[in-house]
Amino acid sequence: MTASTDAIVSNGHGHSSKATATNGTSTSTDERPTALDLSHHLSLLARSRRASPLKDIIRYMAVPGIISLAGGLPPAAYFPFHSVSASAYPASTVLDPETGTPPADSVEVVIPRHKTSDTAFDIAGGLQYTGGSGLAKFAELCKDLTERMWEPVYSDWDILVNSGGTDAWTKVITMLLERGEYVITETQVYPSAQASFIPMGVTAFPIEDDGEGMRADALEAALAGWDESRGRRPRVMYLVPVGQNPLGTTMGAQRRQAIYDVCVKYDVVIIEDDPYTVLQFEPWVVGSKSHPPVPAKTNEDVAAFLDSMVKSFLTIDVQGRVIRLDTFSKTLAPGARLGWFTGSKMFIERLLRGTEVQTQMPSGISSVVIGELLNKWGLDGYLLWITNLREQYRVRRDWMLDALSASFDLVPAESTNVAGAIGLVAYPKGQAHTGPALMSFVPPTGGMFVWCRMYYRTHPQFASFAASYKPEHPEDGDATQAFEAKFWVRLVEALVLLTPGWYFTAFEGEGVSSYGQPGVGAFRLAFSFEPKDLQEEGIRRMARVMTEEWCA
Amino acid sequence: MTASTDAIVSNGHGHSSKATATNGTSTSTDERPTALDLSHHLSLLARSRRASPLKDIIRYMAVPGIISLAGGLPPAAYFPFHSVSASAYPASTVLDPETGTPPADSVEVVIPRHKTSDTAFDIAGGLQYTGGSGLAKFAELCKDLTERMWEPVYSDWDILVNSGGTDAWTKVITMLLERGEYVITETQVYPSAQASFIPMGVTAFPIEDDGEGMRADALEAALAGWDESRGRRPRVMYLVPVGQNPLGTTMGAQRRQAIYDVCVKYDVVIIEDDPYTVLQFEPWVVGSKSHPPVPAKTNEDVAAFLDSMVKSFLTIDVQGRVIRLDTFSKTLAPGARLGWFTGSKMFIERLLRGTEVQTQMPSGISSVVIGELLNKWGLDGYLLWITNLREQYRVRRDWMLDALSASFDLVPAESTNVAGAIGLVAYPKGQAHTGPALMSFVPPTGGMFVWCRMYYRTHPQFASFAASYKPEHPEDGDATQAFEAKFWVRLVEALVLLTPGWYFTAFEGEGVSSYGQPGVGAFRLAFSFEPKDLQEEGIRRMARVMTEEWCA
Repeated sequence: MTASTDAIVSNGHGHSSKATATNGTSTSTDERPTALDLSHHLSLLARSRRASPLKDIIRYMAVPGIISLAGGLPPAAYFPFHSVSASAYPASTVLDPETGTPPADSVEVVIPRHKTSDTAFDIAGGLQYTGGSGLAKFAELCKDLTERMWEPVYSDWDILVNSGGTDAWTKVITMLLERGEYVITETQVYPSAQASFIPMGVTAFPIEDDGEGMRADALEAALAGWDESRGRRPRVMYLVPVGQNPLGTTMGAQRRQAIYDVCVKYDVVIIEDDPYTVLQFEPWVVGSKSHPPVPAKTNEDVAAFLDSMVKSFLTIDVQGRVIRLDTFSKTLAPGARLGWFTGSKMFIERLLRGTEVQTQMPSGISSVVIGELLNKWGLDGYLLWITNLREQYRVRRDWMLDALSASFDLVPAESTNVAGAIGLVAYPKGQAHTGPALMSFVPPTGGMFVWCRMYYRTHPQFASFAASYKPEHPEDGDATQAFEAKFWVRLVEALVLLTPGWYFTAFEGEGVSSYGQPGVGAFRLAFSFEPKDLQEEGIRRMARVMTEEWCA
Repeated sequence: MTASTDAIVSNGHGHSSKATATNGTSTSTDERPTALDLSHHLSLLARSRRASPLKDIIRYMAVPGIISLAGGLPPAAYFPFHSVSASAYPASTVLDPETGTPPADSVEVVIPRHKTSDTAFDIAGGLQYTGGSGLAKFAELCKDLTERMWEPVYSDWDILVNSGGTDAWTKVITMLLERGEYVITETQVYPSAQASFIPMGVTAFPIEDDGEGMRADALEAALAGWDESRGRRPRVMYLVPVGQNPLGTTMGAQRRQAIYDVCVKYDVVIIEDDPYTVLQFEPWVVGSKSHPPVPAKTNEDVAAFLDSMVKSFLTIDVQGRVIRLDTFSKTLAPGARLGWFTGSKMFIERLLRGTEVQTQMPSGISSVVIGELLNKWGLDGYLLWITNLREQYRVRRDWMLDALSASFDLVPAESTNVAGAIGLVAYPKGQAHTGPALMSFVPPTGGMFVWCRMYYRTHPQFASFAASYKPEHPEDGDATQAFEAKFWVRLVEALVLLTPGWYFTAFEGEGVSSYGQPGVGAFRLAFSFEPKDLQEEGIRRMARVMTEEWCA
């Protein structure tokens, strides 16, 4: 290899500016920069993974006329299926959110034994072993979606299909983190995400959040003031930027840029876990009444929705320090267990090595069913489906907020004197300004959840409870948590089940994590699942118990 | 709780003899002993896993009349499918192994939106999130299969569905092993199994094998003579007892008992990875000619096959120290990514905690398609299918052995003076006893592979090659490996692709592993995949190259 080809090759793997990419030695017409080398972020486990020696074999299988006695595969003839098929909804379906009645029309998705065209899926492939990246055609569909929705701003990115969000998260953290390290999180974290890293000896490093999620100024301050005696400075960030679970917050474009800039400064890798990305809605306004789903019908309707979305970190990630997690769980079906990573080729290659030994490959049966549905619908059809789908969730969001508005007096936080409140403050019905501030919440513009900050400090019995409270076990938590646990039982007795906020407290080590301000707890309310009448009745029960307790 | 109920409860979790179980304080009629407490084998990671706090929530969801605003699920109404279906083969299908022509008949497997009976699957369930154990009905089918095929000999065993063999193996080793520890293996190990544990800092501790796989006397000697300076004595064993990959060996019942007894003595946990369990065949005899598949038609035919099988370690595991891995990959389709663990409730519970954060759940789409096929076929139908399936592989095994017999002179090893040979020794055709011993192999009675021990030591150029050989890189290996690599290229040039034996060498640490006896290499030949004519032509090419090289 000559020095000049060396230069071209290293140009393909190192970082280059647009000027470098067009300086005449490169034949590429892609003017986007290439990713920074961030391989120093890999864990010992990830650095130790090797490609299987069997890959040499696979290369030789393509030699014309060769007879392979190398592969230990079952013959496709022994898979006992003539075909797999599905009767699916047309992509243009607009459901009635109150009844969910399936459409009368259908799209027939048939996966035959052998493929009938270059783009079609076949079960001989879908039922067989594949490499770690799964079926190539399915991966292409995912890559097309990423390119279409986000147009990543560096050139050497790639995708890798995974077996859904939990699988993806575990693969990412085992690729990046060592025992004793930290994950930068918001103050409240999805419990399953924490359950993955806590047994690995990793703890959360929570950063203050507001109505848009993590604050960039708080992040900068925390990293600038890092105390080296605590270990290596946190260098991996976990973010759910749309409809954060449980906070319900969606991070705007400016905040994203500010967070990204801090991550560049302190060399932090961002895991953008974005399952709710397409569930972005128009804001809800107090006193408004929900209107039925506005049907999207044309490519223009879809384009308008895509334009209106807050864009992925991929749209600002010039360095390849974002690993984005997408999933079909919220748009098509969780039972498919299909999602995909997007990141720099370096990270994607290491994730592929991990996949080969962690799960081998995603389900081929899931891949052909979902893949052939995407084929039948086309990419435009899928985008039409999600454009209409998010309207379904917008309506559900409205049901819950309308119900809260009907059962409580809601006042903008800035018009109250409630310390630390953001969004809307809820008072007993008819008692705005005169009654006790019961809770506050930020009306969500994405996702599935409303996060209600509960003001136990105004509850007539909280002060005496807290004064006499002594935890029996460490997991009993502080007085606020214990009070919430008692109150939660009261709600269950009134037949309404909410998720206690302390389930989501960022884990900072045994006995270390605190539940925020004394006397301020939280409940997570999901508007995604229950029908309108049950959401309304559930909120009425909640309001009745709260009014009884606070105004007794 | 009284002392007497305490006793009953602890009786249910500790170890008890049959006498204890029937002493009148227990109400159980199950006379099998309960599993030993082997929780000291759990890794730090596995010990640190906690149940999700959300499980309390799930319990309360069952309260009559309760309205749950707790669960963040998509409504089933938003899964865009009317139904998923498959056209499958009848369970009684007997294929022509030469053509693999699909049967004219079919069984229609339809999974409707909502279930039509208590046992049927529905896509509203299959497309939704489930707990870590997946769909309960699918798990029941797997448990029924284990009970029907093996009747485990202790009472408190359970199963857990996983996402196929690779997923299962990674979950088991992360549950059991720490960095710096050992896995007891045979001398040759499936590379992907090693690729999982090598990056974890775990090395193989290989035990000498023979025509039945691992030797019990060698195991006893190795453990008895353990040098504590090497660390904690190996306490986890990886076994593929049927059709071992790559050795092709199947371990008989007496050997299993002997291995098990040593494992009891030295407190070793056995991972019985048994993907080829149903691919057990009658022995092949030199000079015999393959006969077509003998069709199984009745329950008696199935019972005769089940009787003829070497039984799982579960049939001798009175202590619950075996974790068995089953899969549908070899019997129905690898693309399903479905298998199951069987083990003591303690191990299964820890594997469930691991599953919740490693993969969340197996593919629901796979589960309903495979589950409803099993429903349609019935358990008897599935057993009929596998009884016929293993005949297909028996015929393929015959094709390869017949081809070897046609291209080489095969002589029982005990009639030769070839040092260390077992099974059959191959000489150039027409040169039995006079020509050089080219290789030897044990005719397999299970699985997909023939393991050919290659006698490079009789190759006219080996001695001079070995004398002048100097490795350029550590991975070049010893002279035997390097000679094999060169010879492998000769085979590729002759358009036959085999898997080099050194791919499978047990990994004992960087630069430590050796490739067995000097001048004795190996190739793994798969008889599972290629049709008869290609197997025959492949073996002819192999024989031609070998005869040319050895008899030049």
